[in-house]
Amino acid sequence: MTTARTIRVGLEERAYDILIGRNLLERAGQEIAARMPGARAAIITDANVAALHLATIEESLKAAGIQGTAIRVPAGEQSKSFPVLETVVDAILAARLERRDVVIALGGGVVGDLSGFAAGIVRRGMDFVQVPTTLLAQVDSSVGGKTGINTAHGKNLVGVFHQPKLVLADTGVLDTLPPREFRAGYAETVKYGLIDRPEFFAWLEANWQEVFAGGEAREHAIAEACRAKADVVARDERESGDRALLNLGHTFGHALEAATGYDSSRLVHGEGVAIGMALAHRFSARLNLASPDDYQRVEAHLRAVGLPTKLSDIPGGLPGADRLLEYIAQDKKVSRGALTFILTRGIGQSFIAKDVPASEVLAFLEDSLKQ
Amino acid sequence: MTTARTIRVGLEERAYDILIGRNLLERAGQEIAARMPGARAAIITDANVAALHLATIEESLKAAGIQGTAIRVPAGEQSKSFPVLETVVDAILAARLERRDVVIALGGGVVGDLSGFAAGIVRRGMDFVQVPTTLLAQVDSSVGGKTGINTAHGKNLVGVFHQPKLVLADTGVLDTLPPREFRAGYAETVKYGLIDRPEFFAWLEANWQEVFAGGEAREHAIAEACRAKADVVARDERESGDRALLNLGHTFGHALEAATGYDSSRLVHGEGVAIGMALAHRFSARLNLASPDDYQRVEAHLRAVGLPTKLSDIPGGLPGADRLLEYIAQDKKVSRGALTFILTRGIGQSFIAKDVPASEVLAFLEDSLKQ
Repeated sequence: MTTARTIRVGLEERAYDILIGRNLLERAGQEIAARMPGARAAIITDANVAALHLATIEESLKAAGIQGTAIRVPAGEQSKSFPVLETVVDAILAARLERRDVVIALGGGVVGDLSGFAAGIVRRGMDFVQVPTTLLAQVDSSVGGKTGINTAHGKNLVGVFHQPKLVLADTGVLDTLPPREFRAGYAETVKYGLIDRPEFFAWLEANWQEVFAGGEAREHAIAEACRAKADVVARDERESGDRALLNLGHTFGHALEAATGYDSSRLVHGEGVAIGMALAHRFSARLNLASPDDYQRVEAHLRAVGLPTKLSDIPGGLPGADRLLEYIAQDKKVSRGALTFILTRGIGQSFIAKDVPASEVLAFLEDSLKQ
Repeated sequence: MTTARTIRVGLEERAYDILIGRNLLERAGQEIAARMPGARAAIITDANVAALHLATIEESLKAAGIQGTAIRVPAGEQSKSFPVLETVVDAILAARLERRDVVIALGGGVVGDLSGFAAGIVRRGMDFVQVPTTLLAQVDSSVGGKTGINTAHGKNLVGVFHQPKLVLADTGVLDTLPPREFRAGYAETVKYGLIDRPEFFAWLEANWQEVFAGGEAREHAIAEACRAKADVVARDERESGDRALLNLGHTFGHALEAATGYDSSRLVHGEGVAIGMALAHRFSARLNLASPDDYQRVEAHLRAVGLPTKLSDIPGGLPGADRLLEYIAQDKKVSRGALTFILTRGIGQSFIAKDVPASEVLAFLEDSLKQ
C-alpha cells in the first residue's frame, strides 16, 4: 500500500483532487473507478511514454473493470496541432466513447494539453483525467484546466478551459525522466516561489539537490507547487485577473520558443520559462521596480541547477530585437494592443504590469541580445 | 427608427439579449458598440450571404467605429469540418484579434455553429455575436450556445458550449430566403409547440400562412420560439437534463441526415427534423404513449406547409433499418449504450424516454420504410 498527498482544487461543481505520491499508476484504475463508476476510457499517450508506462496503467484499469482503448500520438510539440487533434478526436469517436466516459492523458504537457482539448470538444465535453509523467506537467500543465494546441501564429493560441476530474501525479515515474526534462520542470516549480512564496523559493535554494535526488523533498516540492497553482486557479479559473501571474517568465519564454521554431533540441518550454523569469527580474530591476540583488539571486539559483538564464544560452542564434518584440506582441497575453508583462518588486512579489511601453521592451531586448 | 422585441437569455454572468425585428443589420454596429466598447470584429460569412448582406453590416460597423475583417467560408454543411475550422481560426489570428474582440457569425446554422466553435477556442474563448440570416438559425441554432462541426462519425459530435454576447435576428432578411429553407426553419418553430406549448402549436396551425407571408405574425412566431428555447437553455445550459427535450425529432432526423450523406439536395436539417418529429409522434402512438390523433394532427400540419413527414418523402432511397439504427446509436444522444428518445404523451407533452429497446426501434423503422 502506498500513501499519497491530496490537494483539492476548489472549483465548486468542477472541484477535483490532485494525488501526489509514488506508485499512483498502479492505483489509477481504482481511483478512476471510485470517482467515475461505469466509465470506459481512452488513454492518450505517446510512443516514448507508452514504452515505459502504458502496460502499468492498462493493467490497473483492467483490474478495476475499466475498458480502455490506447490512442498513440507522435512524441513532441508538433503533436499540438490541428491534424493530430483531429486524429485523436476521431479515435475517441471510433471507440464509441460517450460524454460520461473518460479521456486519460498519460504523458507530459504535450499529451496533456492535446488530450484535454480533445476531451473538451468531443461531444462538447467528456470527463478527463490527467496522469502527468513529467515534472513540468505535474507542477503546471496538468493542473488548472488550460488545454490547447499551437498554430503558425503562436503557442497555445487555440484551446478550451476544461478541468480534469482527477490528476494522478506519480512521482516515481520521474525517476526515468532525462535530467534536462527534470530541470525544465524544475523551472516551473521555482516560478511559484518567485510569484508570491518567497519562503518556498528559499526552501528550494537550500534543498534543490534533494528534490532532484527524489524522495520526500521531491514530493514536498511538487505538492507545494500544485497547492500554489490550485490556489490561483480557484481564485481565477478563466484568467480574467490574478491567474495571469502564472505567466511569470512566459511572455519572454513563449517568444523565445517561437523564435527557435519550437525546436526542442535548442529550447524546451521550461528552459524558455527559466530565461523568461531571469529576464523578467532583470527587466524589473532596469525599470527600478526591484533591486538588482533579486535578479542576481534568481539567476544564481537557476544556474546552480543547470538552467539557462540568458539569450546567449540558446544555441543557434536568435533573430533581432524587433522580431522578438513581434513574437511578444502576438502572444496571447496582449490586451487591446498594450503589452502586458508579469514584473516583480522582488523575490515573491510579482505583479501584473499593463501598458508596458514597447520601446522599453525593445531597448531591453537589444541589450539582452548582447549579453 | 425601428423597434425590436428583446428576449433575455437568463444565464447569470453569461446572460444575453436576443433582438428580433426588421432592419437589425443596419443597427448591428451600434448594438455591438454599446455592449462591447472598443472591440474589433471578424465577420464570418459564406459567399451567398455575403452577396446579400455583408455590405450592410460592414457599413453599420464602420459607422459605429468598429474595425471589421470579413472571413468567407464555402456555403453548405461541408464547411462544418476540421479543415474549414482551422482556416477560420487562422484567419482570426491573422487579423490579430484578441480575447475581448468579437467574432460575428453572419449566416445560417452552418456559419453560426462553425463561427461559434472558432470563437470558443481562439485564445480559449473570444466574444461572439450571432446574426442569423435563416429562420432555422433565428429560432434554434443561434440561441443557446451549442457550437460545433461534423465528423465522419456523425453530425455535431465535436464542439463547445459557447454563449453569444448578443443575437440579432433581423426578420427582414428572411424575405430573400428560398421557400424550402423557410419551411425547414419552420419545422424547428413547430417543435417548440410540440415540446410543451400546445397553445403555440394551435396558433401556428391557425396562422402559419401569415408567418410565411412575413410581418407581425412572423415576428411573433420567432419571438415565441426564442422565448421557448431561452427558457430551456436557462434551466439546463449544458444539457444534463431538460435541454434534451430540444432534441425532439433530432435523433431520427440526424440519422436521416447521416444516411443521406448530408446531401442538402436530398434533405436539409429542418426537413430531417420534420420527418423526425412525425416519426417520434407515430412511434409514441405505437408504444401506446399517445393517441394516433396526435400524430395525424402533427403530420397534417407539417404537410400543409409543405414539409416531409415520411421516410419515403426523401428522394433517392435509404439504407435498411439495421443501418439506420446504427446511425441512431452513434448519435450523441446515447447514454451508456441505452437508446434515448424524446417521445410524447400528446401535443405539447414531450418527455425524455431512456432505455428505449433497440428491438422496438428496429421494428418501427422497418415498418416506416414501407410507408
